[in-house]
Amino acid sequence: MPSGDRRPALLNFASDNVWGASEPVLRALVDGNAGPLPSYGADPLTRRLADAFAALFEHEVAVFPVATGTAANALALSAALSPFGLCVCHEEAHVIDDECGAPEFFAGGAKLLGLPGTGCKLDPERLAATLDGLPRHEKQMPAEIVSISQATESGVVYRPEEIAALSAVCRARGLVLHMDGARLANALVTLGCSAAEMTWRAGIDILSFGGTKNGCLAAEAVICFDPKLARTLGQRRKRGGHTLSKARLIAAQFLGYLQDDHWLANARQANAMAGRLAEGLRHVPGIRLAWPTEANEVFVILPDEIDRRLRQAGAVFHPWSGRALAPETTVGPGESLARLVTSFATEADDVDALLRIAAPSGGIGT
Amino acid sequence: MPSGDRRPALLNFASDNVWGASEPVLRALVDGNAGPLPSYGADPLTRRLADAFAALFEHEVAVFPVATGTAANALALSAALSPFGLCVCHEEAHVIDDECGAPEFFAGGAKLLGLPGTGCKLDPERLAATLDGLPRHEKQMPAEIVSISQATESGVVYRPEEIAALSAVCRARGLVLHMDGARLANALVTLGCSAAEMTWRAGIDILSFGGTKNGCLAAEAVICFDPKLARTLGQRRKRGGHTLSKARLIAAQFLGYLQDDHWLANARQANAMAGRLAEGLRHVPGIRLAWPTEANEVFVILPDEIDRRLRQAGAVFHPWSGRALAPETTVGPGESLARLVTSFATEADDVDALLRIAAPSGGIGT
Amino acid sequence: MPSGDRRPALLNFASDNVWGASEPVLRALVDGNAGPLPSYGADPLTRRLADAFAALFEHEVAVFPVATGTAANALALSAALSPFGLCVCHEEAHVIDDECGAPEFFAGGAKLLGLPGTGCKLDPERLAATLDGLPRHEKQMPAEIVSISQATESGVVYRPEEIAALSAVCRARGLVLHMDGARLANALVTLGCSAAEMTWRAGIDILSFGGTKNGCLAAEAVICFDPKLARTLGQRRKRGGHTLSKARLIAAQFLGYLQDDHWLANARQANAMAGRLAEGLRHVPGIRLAWPTEANEVFVILPDEIDRRLRQAGAVFHPWSGRALAPETTVGPGESLARLVTSFATEADDVDALLRIAAPSGGIGT
Amino acid sequence: MPSGDRRPALLNFASDNVWGASEPVLRALVDGNAGPLPSYGADPLTRRLADAFAALFEHEVAVFPVATGTAANALALSAALSPFGLCVCHEEAHVIDDECGAPEFFAGGAKLLGLPGTGCKLDPERLAATLDGLPRHEKQMPAEIVSISQATESGVVYRPEEIAALSAVCRARGLVLHMDGARLANALVTLGCSAAEMTWRAGIDILSFGGTKNGCLAAEAVICFDPKLARTLGQRRKRGGHTLSKARLIAAQFLGYLQDDHWLANARQANAMAGRLAEGLRHVPGIRLAWPTEANEVFVILPDEIDRRLRQAGAVFHPWSGRALAPETTVGPGESLARLVTSFATEADDVDALLRIAAPSGGIGT
Repeated sequence: MPSGDRRPALLNFASDNVWGASEPVLRALVDGNAGPLPSYGADPLTRRLADAFAALFEHEVAVFPVATGTAANALALSAALSPFGLCVCHEEAHVIDDECGAPEFFAGGAKLLGLPGTGCKLDPERLAATLDGLPRHEKQMPAEIVSISQATESGVVYRPEEIAALSAVCRARGLVLHMDGARLANALVTLGCSAAEMTWRAGIDILSFGGTKNGCLAAEAVICFDPKLARTLGQRRKRGGHTLSKARLIAAQFLGYLQDDHWLANARQANAMAGRLAEGLRHVPGIRLAWPTEANEVFVILPDEIDRRLRQAGAVFHPWSGRALAPETTVGPGESLARLVTSFATEADDVDALLRIAAPSGGIGT
Repeated sequence: MPSGDRRPALLNFASDNVWGASEPVLRALVDGNAGPLPSYGADPLTRRLADAFAALFEHEVAVFPVATGTAANALALSAALSPFGLCVCHEEAHVIDDECGAPEFFAGGAKLLGLPGTGCKLDPERLAATLDGLPRHEKQMPAEIVSISQATESGVVYRPEEIAALSAVCRARGLVLHMDGARLANALVTLGCSAAEMTWRAGIDILSFGGTKNGCLAAEAVICFDPKLARTLGQRRKRGGHTLSKARLIAAQFLGYLQDDHWLANARQANAMAGRLAEGLRHVPGIRLAWPTEANEVFVILPDEIDRRLRQAGAVFHPWSGRALAPETTVGPGESLARLVTSFATEADDVDALLRIAAPSGGIGT
Repeated sequence: MPSGDRRPALLNFASDNVWGASEPVLRALVDGNAGPLPSYGADPLTRRLADAFAALFEHEVAVFPVATGTAANALALSAALSPFGLCVCHEEAHVIDDECGAPEFFAGGAKLLGLPGTGCKLDPERLAATLDGLPRHEKQMPAEIVSISQATESGVVYRPEEIAALSAVCRARGLVLHMDGARLANALVTLGCSAAEMTWRAGIDILSFGGTKNGCLAAEAVICFDPKLARTLGQRRKRGGHTLSKARLIAAQFLGYLQDDHWLANARQANAMAGRLAEGLRHVPGIRLAWPTEANEVFVILPDEIDRRLRQAGAVFHPWSGRALAPETTVGPGESLARLVTSFATEADDVDALLRIAAPSGGIGT
Repeated sequence: MPSGDRRPALLNFASDNVWGASEPVLRALVDGNAGPLPSYGADPLTRRLADAFAALFEHEVAVFPVATGTAANALALSAALSPFGLCVCHEEAHVIDDECGAPEFFAGGAKLLGLPGTGCKLDPERLAATLDGLPRHEKQMPAEIVSISQATESGVVYRPEEIAALSAVCRARGLVLHMDGARLANALVTLGCSAAEMTWRAGIDILSFGGTKNGCLAAEAVICFDPKLARTLGQRRKRGGHTLSKARLIAAQFLGYLQDDHWLANARQANAMAGRLAEGLRHVPGIRLAWPTEANEVFVILPDEIDRRLRQAGAVFHPWSGRALAPETTVGPGESLARLVTSFATEADDVDALLRIAAPSGGIGT
C-alpha cells in the first residue's frame, strides 16, 4: 500500500490538536482570503456559514463562531448561567478541569459541580438525585445548566436516547442542557445518526460545535437551538475579545470543513485509526482497554515496560487520570493509564508502527 | 500604468480590516500548517516568535499571542489593574469606546476614565492634573494604569518624546503605561524610529502589538517589557479562552509578517496611500482635513454633496465623531466628519478613483 | 430657651452620618433585641417591615434591607444591568464617584456613564440626546438603566414632574429608572408630596431607600416597584454578603424609623436647620450659596478668611467639587466651595454658633 | 436557683443566630450611639477596637470590621486569591456550601475545591496529597489558599498542633491559611489556649473573627496577621458595600463583646449547655452522637419517633447532612441526623425541658 512519496510513519498520538488544518480546510481559508469583505461578521462567508449550520442541523440556529473551544464553552455556559448559578457536569469534564476557570470567569463567578461517572458520562438517575438533593435556600447556588461532552473525555459516546434521558431530567427542573462538542464529529460518525438527532431532537439547547480537533486550525462555534439563549451572546463574545474583525478566518475554515461532508470524512479516518489502534493494543499481552474506543481516543492500561519501550522509540502520548474508570477496572502496580489520540492525519502506517513497538514479538498486525 | 491583470479600482476605505492577509503572511500560515507540532504554544514557531520579538524590540520580552486586538488590550490592562483600579485613557480610546467592556470584564470590574484631547492624544499636563486631582480616599478607585493608542484613533502619531513625557507623569506616580499598538507599524514608519525607541525606551511598560490591521488575518500579541506584568498573563489568557491549541496559527502569521521587514513594507504602502488620499482630498474645494494624516487614516470634513456623490459611486467609509477636533476646527451645517482608511492592499488607482469622484471637475490628480 | 441640661453647641457639619441613631430608632433596636427569632429575614420584624413599606408606598413592593447605601445602590443597579450594560447617571453621582466601583463589581463589569448637569441633576433633553447618540453596535455597551439621586449630591431636589420627564425618556427606550434615595426623607419633606408620588407614580422602578443618614445606625433597603427586578436580588444580596443572619437589626431600626412618621420629623429638623444655616450664611458678606438649599445640605462659596476662621474655631465641614455649578456661578481666587450638612441631631444653637463665627461683626442671628 | 422572673423554658435550638445581642454588647452599642463621631471608621471606637484585637492576639493586626460572616470570609479569601486561583476547603465548609458563591464573587471567579474529611476537618496528609496531585499546567487553576473552620461545621475543634500541621503543608507550597472563626470563641473556650496559640502561632495568616453567633447582633472582622494580605482589603471592603458609614455600630458591639472577657463567658455558657444537652441525649435509648460535642453544637442521630415527639412539643432544630460522618457511623432507616445549637442565651432549663421530651420515661437528668 505505502507508495514512494508517503511520509514516514509518525508516532505522535499526543492529541488531535497537534496537526494543522486538513487540506480542504486550508484551501478554503486561502480562498477566503481574497478581496475586501465587511468586517466583524458582516461578510458573506459568515452569512453562508449560518445557513450551512441551519441546513446541517435542520433547525433555525444562532451561530457564534470563535477561535477556541474554551471560548465556545465558556460563552455557551454564560448564556444560561446567573453569576450565582450552578452548572452540573462530570467531575472530569473539560469545562471544570482544563479551562483555568473560563466558565466561572465568563459567568461572573458561577460554580461548576462535578459528578462522578464511569467513562466521564453523567448518569440520569444520579443527576436527578443530585439536583433534587441540592438545598433550596438562598444560601445555595441554584442549578441552572447541565453540561455533557460528546464524545466524553474518556472517548465514549452518548447515544441519542441517553441524551434524551438527561434532557428529561433537565427539562423537568427548568435547566438548560449544553453539549461540549469538541469531538462531535467523531461521535456522529460512530453513531451514524444525524446532527439533529444527536442534538436538539435529543434535547440539547446549546452546543459548542468543535472544528479545531478535526481538521480546522481554529474554528469553533456556539450554536443556539433555543433563540432565547442567543440574546446576549453577541455582546458577551465581543467583551470576551472573541469577535474577530476578519471573521472570514473562521467562517472560511468551517465552510471548507462542512463542504461535501469533509468533516465526517476526517472523523471517519480518525475513528478508523483509533479502532485499528485499540484492536491492536488490546491483543498485546499485558495491555487492556480502560474504556471502549468509541471515537478517536484510545485509553489503555499499559505495563510500565511497554510504556517505556514506546517512549524510547519516540512515541508521544499522555498519561491519564483513572477517576472515571469503572469500579471493576483498576490500574495495578507496575501499570499506568495512557491516552492515545488519532486524527484525520493519522495513517495506518503510524498505527502499525506503534503496534510493532508495543508487541515486538509479532502476532500483532500480521 | 495599469496592466492587463490589475484588479479594478476599489472604493473600499471602510477599515484596514476589510482585507485578508497579505501574501507573505498567508504563505507563512500555509507553510506553518504542515506536520504535527506540540500544542498550546509549545511549538517551535511560537518559540521563534518570542525570539523575533526580542530582537525586534532589542529587549527581553514576554509575548502572549492572541487572535484579537480587544483580547490583547483587555489582557494587557488586566495585568496591571486591580478590580477596583482606574485606567486613564483618551475619551475616544478604543479600549473605552469600542470593546463592549472587555477591559472592565478582564479586570474584574475596574473603571476607565476618559480624558479629552485633540487628535485623541493625551496631554501630559492634563494627565498629571487629572491624576493629582483624583481624591485619595478608599471610596475612590485609584489610578493604576494609563493607556495610549499609537497611532491614535484620530490617525495621528505620538513622538517618542511625547510618550516619554507621559511616562514621566506615570512613573512619578507609580502607574503603568500601556500602548495600544493596533496601528503601531504605521506609526513606526511615519516616525522612522526603532520599535525600541517608540516603546520601552520611551517608557512603555506593556504593549498590544497589532498585526491584524496591517496584513495578518488574526494576529495580535501582548508584549511585556516589565516581566512583573507577565506573571499572571498565561492564566488570564487561558481563562479568557485566548490560548489557541494550534498556536502555530498566530505564530506563523507573525513570522511571515516580521520576516524581511514585510510588516514595515505593508505599513509604508498603507501610509503612502493615505498621504496620497489626504493630499488629493484637501485640494478639493469644500473639503478640509480634520487632523493631520500621520498614519493610514484620513479624516476629512466633507460637504454633504461630496459625501453623497462618493457614496452613490459605491465608496465605502465611515462617519466619525468630532469630539477630538481641535477647538478651532468645527463641522459646519451641511458637513460631516468622515474617516477613510487605507491598507497594504490599497493601490494608487483606488485612491485616484475616489479622488476623481470627489472632484469631478478635474484639478485633482492631473 | 436653652435649659440647663442642653448639650453645648457643636460645630460638626461634616456629614449626616457623624451622628448615631435617633432615640426612637435606638429604642426600637433595643426592643427588637429580645427573645429568639428566626434568622436570615424570616423574623416577624422583617415581615412587618415589608408591610410597612407597602403601606408607605401604597404599592406592592419587594424589600431587601441591607446595612449600607453602597450595597443598596450596587444591588439595585445590578438587578437591571447586564455585565456589558451601561448605567447613565450624573457625573458626580455617588454611584460613580464614591463607591470604589461597587456598581461595576456587583454588575460584573458594567460601566457607568456620567453626564454633566447643574446641581447634579440630569436634564431630560440631554439624557435623551445622550441615549440617542450612543452607537448601536455590538462594540458598545448598551444603556440599560438611569440612576438619579434624590436629593442630589448638590442638595437640590427633583420635583415629581422632573422625575416623570426623565422616566418618559427611559420608558420610551426600554430603560429602568433607579433612584438613590440616601436623602429621600429630606426631599420628601421639602416637596410635601407622598412617597408614592415621588417614586413609582413618577416612574421610578427601583429605589435605594436610605435610613442611615436620617437617624438610623445602618439601615437601607432596595425597594422594587417592578417585581421583575426583584427576581435575582435575594441571591445577589446573599452572595454580596449582605444578608444579615440577625435581620432584626435592620428591620427593628426601620420600624422605629417609620413609626409615627418619626423619619419625617427627623428630616424636617435637618432641613429646618439647613434652611436656618443657609439663610444665615448667605447674609454674611462675601459668602454666597452655590446651589439653593432644598434639603439638609448647604453649599457655600466661602472667602478663604472665613473658611479659616471657622476651622480655627473647630467647625468641621468638607470642601467640595464645583463641577456641578451653574455656568454663571464661579469660585473665584481666594474662595472655595464648602459643604455643610445638618441632621436630625443638629440644633439651632449649633447653627447659630457657627453663624456667629462666620460673621463675628454681628448682624447675623440678631 | 430559678427565681420568679425567669423566662419560661424555650426549645429553640435552631441556631446560635436566633438570639439578639447579649446584654453587655447591647449596652455598649447604646453607649456608643452618643455624640458625633467621624464616619467610615475614623472614629475612636474603631481605633480602640484595633488596639483591642492587637492585645488579644499579642500581634500587630490589620482589622476590617464587617456586618456578616459571609462578607468576612469572602473578603478574607479574596485577599489571597487570584481570579483564576483555587481555594481548598472541606467539602461541607460554610464558604463552599452556604454563601451563595460569595467567595467566587469577591475573588472574581475563583474556584473552591472541597475535600472530604470526618467531622468537617481537613486532614494534613490528604491535603498534601491533593495539592501535590493537582496538575501544574496553565489550564488548571493553581491552589493559593486553604480555608478551615474553627469550630468546624460538625462542631468539633482543631487542636493548635493540628492547625500547625495544616499550616506546614501550606507554607511548604506557598499557600495562605485562612480560618473561618465564626465559632472561634467556642473553640477557644474548649481548648483553653490563647487566641494567639490558636491562630498565628499555629500558622494562620488571615482570620474571619466572628462575634454575631456568640452575642453580637452583627459584628465580624477580617483579621490579617500578615500585613501583605491587608493591602487591598480597604478597597475591596468598600466596593463590596461593607464599609459602614457609622462604623461605630460594629466597633461598639465588639468593644462590649471583648470587654472583661465577656465573649469567653458567652462561649462558656453556650458550650456548657451543649455539653449538658449532649450528655443528656446520648443517654436516651436510640440516640447517639454523630460527632463529639466540642463546641456549642450537638449533632445526634435520632430515631424518627423522638424527632417527631420533639417537634410536636415545639422544639426547633435543623436536619443535617451526614457527609462528614466517620465511616463507621451510619444513619439507619428510621433515623435522621439533626443539629441542635446552644448559645449564650440558652439556659439549663431549656436543655432539661428538651431532654424531658426526648426521654419522657425518665432516666435522664436523674
